[in-house]
Amino acid sequence: MKRLAILGSTGSIGRSALAVVDTHPDRLSVVGLAAGDNDGLLAEQVAQYRPSVVAMATAEAVDRLRGRGTPLPKSVGVGPAGLLQVATHPAADVVLFASSGTAGLEAVLAAIEARKTIALANKEILVMAGGLVMAAARRAGVTILPVDSEHNAIHQCLHGRAPEEIKRLILTASGGPFRGYSAADLQAVTAAAALQHPTWRMGRKITIDSATLMNKGLEVIEAHWLFGVPADRIDVVIHPQSIVHSMVELRDGSIIAQLGVTDMRLPIQYACSYPDRWDAPVPTLDLTRCGHLDFHEPNRDNFPCLDLAFRALRAQGSMPVVLNAANEVAVGVFLDGRIGFTSIAQVIERTMDAHEPAAVATLQQVRAVDAWARLRAAEIARALELKA
Amino acid sequence: MKRLAILGSTGSIGRSALAVVDTHPDRLSVVGLAAGDNDGLLAEQVAQYRPSVVAMATAEAVDRLRGRGTPLPKSVGVGPAGLLQVATHPAADVVLFASSGTAGLEAVLAAIEARKTIALANKEILVMAGGLVMAAARRAGVTILPVDSEHNAIHQCLHGRAPEEIKRLILTASGGPFRGYSAADLQAVTAAAALQHPTWRMGRKITIDSATLMNKGLEVIEAHWLFGVPADRIDVVIHPQSIVHSMVELRDGSIIAQLGVTDMRLPIQYACSYPDRWDAPVPTLDLTRCGHLDFHEPNRDNFPCLDLAFRALRAQGSMPVVLNAANEVAVGVFLDGRIGFTSIAQVIERTMDAHEPAAVATLQQVRAVDAWARLRAAEIARALELKA
Repeated sequence: MKRLAILGSTGSIGRSALAVVDTHPDRLSVVGLAAGDNDGLLAEQVAQYRPSVVAMATAEAVDRLRGRGTPLPKSVGVGPAGLLQVATHPAADVVLFASSGTAGLEAVLAAIEARKTIALANKEILVMAGGLVMAAARRAGVTILPVDSEHNAIHQCLHGRAPEEIKRLILTASGGPFRGYSAADLQAVTAAAALQHPTWRMGRKITIDSATLMNKGLEVIEAHWLFGVPADRIDVVIHPQSIVHSMVELRDGSIIAQLGVTDMRLPIQYACSYPDRWDAPVPTLDLTRCGHLDFHEPNRDNFPCLDLAFRALRAQGSMPVVLNAANEVAVGVFLDGRIGFTSIAQVIERTMDAHEPAAVATLQQVRAVDAWARLRAAEIARALELKA
Repeated sequence: MKRLAILGSTGSIGRSALAVVDTHPDRLSVVGLAAGDNDGLLAEQVAQYRPSVVAMATAEAVDRLRGRGTPLPKSVGVGPAGLLQVATHPAADVVLFASSGTAGLEAVLAAIEARKTIALANKEILVMAGGLVMAAARRAGVTILPVDSEHNAIHQCLHGRAPEEIKRLILTASGGPFRGYSAADLQAVTAAAALQHPTWRMGRKITIDSATLMNKGLEVIEAHWLFGVPADRIDVVIHPQSIVHSMVELRDGSIIAQLGVTDMRLPIQYACSYPDRWDAPVPTLDLTRCGHLDFHEPNRDNFPCLDLAFRALRAQGSMPVVLNAANEVAVGVFLDGRIGFTSIAQVIERTMDAHEPAAVATLQQVRAVDAWARLRAAEIARALELKA
């Protein structure tokens, strides 16, 4: 029996994780649940899974949760301290980081210190603090299992192969809704159009990241940290069918690929079961009914966010923090209708141009760079807005 | 330094193996070479690689080899005894079975007894005596590494995964030159037309096997023995581009595939380097230049040899021996222009119908069944010939 703590249990990944628990009640139990402000769903989850610890983002949310009358565990945490309680609960074997954003940064380091197996579905943790997190995991001898379908695919392809066997990681990308658009078409793209993504149903921020290919750029940075492969040996190919989830080229040129249906329960279950593998109640992929599989080069001119991510990764240190922060600001401003689609990359590029990358040795430094980059990106976005 | 013995050094696989040795002179050396009757090429190979033992199929061939004046090693073997000498030479680490046919049966068991790593590029060995060979390998703790591109792909996909993780093996097949032909089209196929295969350049027998899909059927039987997976969990899909070399579906539905360029040096090198992996001087597969990848169901009505192989595998014991022998006879008679393309399957099926499968516990029993089946298949072919 593996005991699971979930940070972000009311979100999409968190709910899928609980569905995995439902499928394997003999193998998985829930010891901790942390949520943001969805007290209604968290109350239901607490009633069903009876965790030993719960946490919510704010005292108000916890008050609402208590007001619902569901019997709660003795241990009810609030805010960052609450996240730490869930992430380090002594009974937890696997801690799933299923919430987005930077709130999980301290918690992941604490969970590593506490020698938990880490199931990672949060992008910012590795993009912002990959060096710190991976060094801590190495020191503690802790396994970090990626839940993101691309990195999970690579983990499955590698299956313990040594880094020196790897020639190249090949991340696949659906290409987003604007694959094939001309530069002029992209100028005219609206937030509403960008929010329609072909394959996965996702939140607004990640949907825009998928349209700009920044999502893939962030995944390149994550892949670097997870698998220890430098930027110039990570490639991105557009694969509109999203059936091949990613690939690894080994040193003799052999390519190992992982294929499957697109169902987040699968990588979550993989992370929970690893190093074992369990049956899964999902339909089998029938390649004879998939039509054909295509692979194209990404259009780096029209989707410059991809190369900005490579640039940030090559610069290392604080630059990926700046990339991530500037992207969040730019996407927010775009979703508000204040800048155009193609200005997203401009905001990021100019913020990066204004930054001198430095080593980041602590989370405090990471947060300081993040704060600086958000302010600077907001200024740059305002200037672009005025011009528009 | 690994020391290699090659049975069948003058054939296509043998020559590719020596090309691999040329690429890695610091890692591979040649201790033994066995050839059939090509004394000219063997003399060149002996001069270049200076093996400690050589063998040829007949005394006449050895006489011709001696007549060429190339300095030969002290140990020069003839016929089956010569094969045994090469396959069990004390200095050999890896023995590559690169010749086709049944001559290698005794030699592979002897090499296993001598605790050599076996690199297997011979189909008949597993189709005829898979049970005996795999049991011997288990007893001796010997690794059998498949060189055939499909099985090599599966070996790479599994990478040590346990049999209980496997849901299904998926062998890819190019579909041969007559993919998409109607039953009537197939009736009219000539030996000359069948000898033109789209992807690989191969010998006459295997080219016809590829056209009838018997080649894939024999591979299904081999896959069963190599990976311990029963017939009903081995699938065949037509993949005309031959880029995905084969796949494994794991118990959670995840599919691991191996892709690459079609160059026999790669699986040979893999078998020589295993469990390490070395650089290879072959062009990298660029998926963005491959066009698309297609997967179809095989047409089992028009290509009944595939299901005959499944039937033989399910019957087990002596039936795969009968399948293989009857197929060799039928293909030979077809190549002589004496029966039509669609009669190949009829000869095999009727020979199988006439056989009551029994367990085979010794090579003598295997050879007795083989001899019976060849006689019977020849009779059946003659009857079809008279009718035609």
